Amino acid sequence: MPSSWPTGNKIMKDSNLPMPPVGVTMGCPAGVGPEIVLRLFEREQLAGRVPPFVVLGDRGVLSRCAAELAADCPINDWRPGDAPDAGRLNVLACSDLAPAEFAWGRPTAASGRAMARYIEEAVRLIGEGGLSAMATCPIAKKTLQQAGYFFPGHTEMLAALCHTSQYAMMMAGTELKVCLATIHQPVMRVAALLSVDGLCRLLELTAVSLRRDFAVEKPRIAVAALNPHAGEHGLFGDEEENIIGPAVTQARANGIDVEGPLPPDTVFYKAVRQKSHDAVLAMYHDQGLIPFKLLHFDDGVNVTLGLPIVRTSVDHGTAYDIAGRGLASHRSLLAAVRMASGVAANRRIYGEIRQ
Amino acid sequence: MPSSWPTGNKIMKDSNLPMPPVGVTMGCPAGVGPEIVLRLFEREQLAGRVPPFVVLGDRGVLSRCAAELAADCPINDWRPGDAPDAGRLNVLACSDLAPAEFAWGRPTAASGRAMARYIEEAVRLIGEGGLSAMATCPIAKKTLQQAGYFFPGHTEMLAALCHTSQYAMMMAGTELKVCLATIHQPVMRVAALLSVDGLCRLLELTAVSLRRDFAVEKPRIAVAALNPHAGEHGLFGDEEENIIGPAVTQARANGIDVEGPLPPDTVFYKAVRQKSHDAVLAMYHDQGLIPFKLLHFDDGVNVTLGLPIVRTSVDHGTAYDIAGRGLASHRSLLAAVRMASGVAANRRIYGEIRQ
Repeated sequence: MPSSWPTGNKIMKDSNLPMPPVGVTMGCPAGVGPEIVLRLFEREQLAGRVPPFVVLGDRGVLSRCAAELAADCPINDWRPGDAPDAGRLNVLACSDLAPAEFAWGRPTAASGRAMARYIEEAVRLIGEGGLSAMATCPIAKKTLQQAGYFFPGHTEMLAALCHTSQYAMMMAGTELKVCLATIHQPVMRVAALLSVDGLCRLLELTAVSLRRDFAVEKPRIAVAALNPHAGEHGLFGDEEENIIGPAVTQARANGIDVEGPLPPDTVFYKAVRQKSHDAVLAMYHDQGLIPFKLLHFDDGVNVTLGLPIVRTSVDHGTAYDIAGRGLASHRSLLAAVRMASGVAANRRIYGEIRQ
Repeated sequence: MPSSWPTGNKIMKDSNLPMPPVGVTMGCPAGVGPEIVLRLFEREQLAGRVPPFVVLGDRGVLSRCAAELAADCPINDWRPGDAPDAGRLNVLACSDLAPAEFAWGRPTAASGRAMARYIEEAVRLIGEGGLSAMATCPIAKKTLQQAGYFFPGHTEMLAALCHTSQYAMMMAGTELKVCLATIHQPVMRVAALLSVDGLCRLLELTAVSLRRDFAVEKPRIAVAALNPHAGEHGLFGDEEENIIGPAVTQARANGIDVEGPLPPDTVFYKAVRQKSHDAVLAMYHDQGLIPFKLLHFDDGVNVTLGLPIVRTSVDHGTAYDIAGRGLASHRSLLAAVRMASGVAANRRIYGEIRQ
C-alpha cells in the first residue's frame, strides 16, 4: 500500500473475516420502500445478484405488501450475528405498526417514529459490527418532523447520530462521480454560497473517499467553474478568480491532485470520455446532476462522504402517489446495496471502517 | 404535407433541380480555417463522405497551407453555376492576400477585411441561388472589429446582412438539439435576462426550425427550468412560476407543442434516452452545453435559427495558438457541411429557402 494512503485507523486484520450483511433501512413504511425491498428479494437475491442484506423494518408492513402484490416472500427473523438466509427475506423487526395505524401514501407520527428507528438501529449495529454498511430507502422530511425529529433530511440525521459535522453528498456511478458544492438552492443564490474554505473541505472529503471507499490510489479531481468558459478572465463572472481558483490552489498545497476551475461544458466530457479525472466537484445541483442522470438515470447512487460509517441511498423519494402498487423500480436500491457492500469492503482494506 | 406545416413560401418546384453546393467560408485566414478546409478535402471529399462544397476564401493562403502541410490539394477555380469538381478543392477566390500581409496566428486589418468578404459573398450567392447554404469556419471578434465591422460576432453580422433581428442559436446533433435562452452570461445574471416574450420568440423560432429545417412533422419542445427541481413550488426560486411557466402557456396558446418548465436534471435524459422531445430550450449556456458536449463533443453543429438562409458553423474558435500546424480536427466542419446540406434540402421541401 502506498505510504500516501490514509492508514491511521485501518484495521487490516478484519479483512480476513466474513463481511457482515448490508443493512437496508425500509424508509417510510407508507412509501415505496417496502415494495422495492420485496422486488430486491424476489428479482435479485433469489437470482444471486445482490450481496447479502438484511432489512431493518416492519415485518407486518412487509407481509401485507407481499400479500397485496401477490409476491412470494418468506421472511427470516434475522438476529445480529446470524448468517443471512439466502432463500428468505432477512428482516430485523424494528417496529410493529398496528394495521389501523397504517395506509399506503399516508404517513403518521407512528410510522415516522418507526422509520427513524430503522435508521438509529442500523447505525448502532454498524458500530457493533453486526452490519457492514447501510443502504437507505427513502424517507420524507415532513414525516420525520411529524415524528419529532427536526432534521432537514436523512443525511443530517445520520451526521448527528455519527457525531460528524463535516459531510457531503456524492452521486456515484461507474462512469461518473460527482460532488455538489451547493444542493437545493436557486441558481441566483449559488455564487453567494461558495467559499474557499467550504470548497477546500469538500475537496478533502472527496479525495479521502476516492482513496478509501473507491480504492483509487491517486485520485485526480476536477473542479467545475461556476460560469461559462470558466468566466473567460472575469468577462462572465469573477467567482472563478476570487473563490474557486484560490480553493484549488489551497487544496493543491494540501497535497490533493486537483485541477480547475475548468469550463463546465467540457469538464464532464473529459472526466467521462477521456477518463481525465476520478471525480468532478460541481458548483450547483444541476451542473452535476444533468450529466450524472444522463449517464446514470437508473443506477445512480447517493453516497454520504465524511461519515465514519458507510451509507448509500437510493436517489428517489417516497413516491407516496404510487406507493403499495408495485410500480416503483428497485434498480436504484440494487445499485445502492451493491455500492454499500463494495465501499465497505474497500474501507476494510484502505481505511477505517468504524469510528 | 400536413396543413399545420409552414407552407407560405415553400417552393416545391425547386426540389427537382440539382442542389447547388454548400459554401464554406474560410474564416480568419490566420486561424485554423484553411487547414480544416484542406483536411475536409483530403480526408472526406476524396472519399465521397461529404456533400459537394465550395470554399469562399483565399487561393494563395490555401496553397501555402497545403505546401506547408505537404498536402496534395489541386485547386479548381470555381465560378457560380459550375458543377463542383469532385477531384479537386473547389475555391471561389474572394481575396488575394499578399504574402507580406499574412502570418499564421497573426490576423491583420487586411486579413480581417478578407474574412468579412467571404461571409458577404456567401450570403449574396445563396440569395442568387448559386449556393444552397453556408457552413462557416471560425472568425475572431477582435479581428472583425479591426477590419471595421463592429459586430459582436458572426451571427450578428449575418443577421444584419439578412435584415433579420429575430434569430437564435441551436446546437444540433443526432441525439440532442438544444437552444439557449442566454449565452455568454454569468450564472448570477441569467435570471434577470429571462422574459416571457423572449422565451416565446425562441420557442417560435425553434418550432419553425424543427419543421422546415429538420423535417419534424409535429415538433415537441421541452423547456428546462432554471432552478433545481423546477423551483419546487417556489422553494428554490420563483422564475419558473413568474417567467418560464407563463411563456410556456403563451407558446401553447400559439399552437406550439411545448412542455415545461421541467426539472433540469431529468429533462435531457428524457429527451435523449426516451425521445420524449425533439429539442430542449435551456435557460443558460452550461445547462444546454454540458449534456450537448457529453453527447456531441466532436460532431456538434451550431445552427443559426431565424435567418432566411441556411447557416451552420463549426463549434470551435480560430485557435491562433496552433494555426497552420495541421493539428486542428476537421470533424466539426464535416458535421457542419453535412448538416447545412441536409437542412437546405429539407427547406426546399418544407419551407422557404430564400427571403
